[in-house]
Amino acid sequence: MKEYRAWCFDLDGTVYRGDVPIPETVRFIRSLREKGAGVFFVTNNSALTPERQAEKLMGMGITAAPEEIMTSSVATADHLLKNHGTIPVYMIGEEGLRSALTSAGHRIVREAPDAVVVGIDREITYGKLADASLAVSAGSAFVATNSDKAYPTERGLVPGNGAFAGLIELATGVSPFYIGKPSVPMLEALADRHGLEKEEMIMVGDNYETDIVAGIRYGIDTVHVDTGVTRTSALSNYGEQPTYALKTLDGWGAN
Amino acid sequence: MKEYRAWCFDLDGTVYRGDVPIPETVRFIRSLREKGAGVFFVTNNSALTPERQAEKLMGMGITAAPEEIMTSSVATADHLLKNHGTIPVYMIGEEGLRSALTSAGHRIVREAPDAVVVGIDREITYGKLADASLAVSAGSAFVATNSDKAYPTERGLVPGNGAFAGLIELATGVSPFYIGKPSVPMLEALADRHGLEKEEMIMVGDNYETDIVAGIRYGIDTVHVDTGVTRTSALSNYGEQPTYALKTLDGWGAN
Repeated sequence: MKEYRAWCFDLDGTVYRGDVPIPETVRFIRSLREKGAGVFFVTNNSALTPERQAEKLMGMGITAAPEEIMTSSVATADHLLKNHGTIPVYMIGEEGLRSALTSAGHRIVREAPDAVVVGIDREITYGKLADASLAVSAGSAFVATNSDKAYPTERGLVPGNGAFAGLIELATGVSPFYIGKPSVPMLEALADRHGLEKEEMIMVGDNYETDIVAGIRYGIDTVHVDTGVTRTSALSNYGEQPTYALKTLDGWGAN
Repeated sequence: MKEYRAWCFDLDGTVYRGDVPIPETVRFIRSLREKGAGVFFVTNNSALTPERQAEKLMGMGITAAPEEIMTSSVATADHLLKNHGTIPVYMIGEEGLRSALTSAGHRIVREAPDAVVVGIDREITYGKLADASLAVSAGSAFVATNSDKAYPTERGLVPGNGAFAGLIELATGVSPFYIGKPSVPMLEALADRHGLEKEEMIMVGDNYETDIVAGIRYGIDTVHVDTGVTRTSALSNYGEQPTYALKTLDGWGAN
């Protein structure tokens, strides 16, 4: 079995479910750290900063440093920087996005932005959606942290960022550029920041349509685990298969 | 030229533009009233009550009674009554929708609705969109007052009700039933309330894709006027043509 130097883990459904850690993954991450392999976390969640996300993992007994965590917000800020430099941005989003944009040197403005950036915002208002639509119609770049149309809560599936970006797309006729999985900018940003080569990277996730597709599109090896959204039995519905398909990470090295 | 007993006018782009009345239409409506013809107003706007809409018209010097005004909210309330009786409804919307639903005998509830009704709501919150999505996913009927994805303001096009209904559709995978033009329930509700026959009705509007299509689908004659969204020169892009195409209503009887 090939040795990988940079393990990229999806979070919800792979490392934990809601607030409950998945023990097989926790053990596996511990063994990777003992061997000195690189451990990274790649999450479409735009709301939390890497610092808060690391605290959440530490609270579950999983060692994690902020710089190991790539969120869709951090990748959004990096993407804008790489393509436009530091620019005035109209932002819909929460603390994770605000922090990522300003840390990268972008300026958050209310008028005449060069880009409209949309992440999940549980304090959304009509005025924010109208401002964003007007700026997009006027020609601002339109970037969405991720395309997840809904996400699970204790009450059931509630609207995700993809639904809000979709609202602005319906109102303006302009499609957003999506940063999160299944797109590749988060993996690109990780590789850029840490000097990783594709041959040494591997993406681990439970969701074929986001995690595995992102890995395939980026051109790295992938591990599917049967601990979340996509059941192993459903993988045959898809064309290109993950490099490895395991029930849990306890199966790594055993097959 | 055929005599029609029931003239159904679209409002914005046909009777007025924003706050400015269109003089040819104002004159034409006056002549209809002098001849004793029926005058009705058919608007996708769900926010205003018929009383407030009539006041707006009176303020422009156009005689109008609340019972002559069919809004997408009134037609929504009538549609629910006809198909489900009086039911508990989760509402996203403004005063026009609230008033129409309660006047028809429906009960506005926060939990366990039989129907989710979505109209434009400039006080939208994440919580309302989440509640609506959860109820739709749980099997409530899903009705939207209208499908307009954007609407014009002084600042430009801002998100319309169709964009919000579209957000819930993206989050739930359930398509709404649309009441407003180009659907026919508003014309049906007018005919039901006033005992009108299709042969005596005619729909007048500036927008081919909403006003004219609604008239064609309902099976009544139509007049297109070149005072708003669809230019006369663009009518050839569409299949079925309006019964009459005029620059303004000054041209009625002259061609």
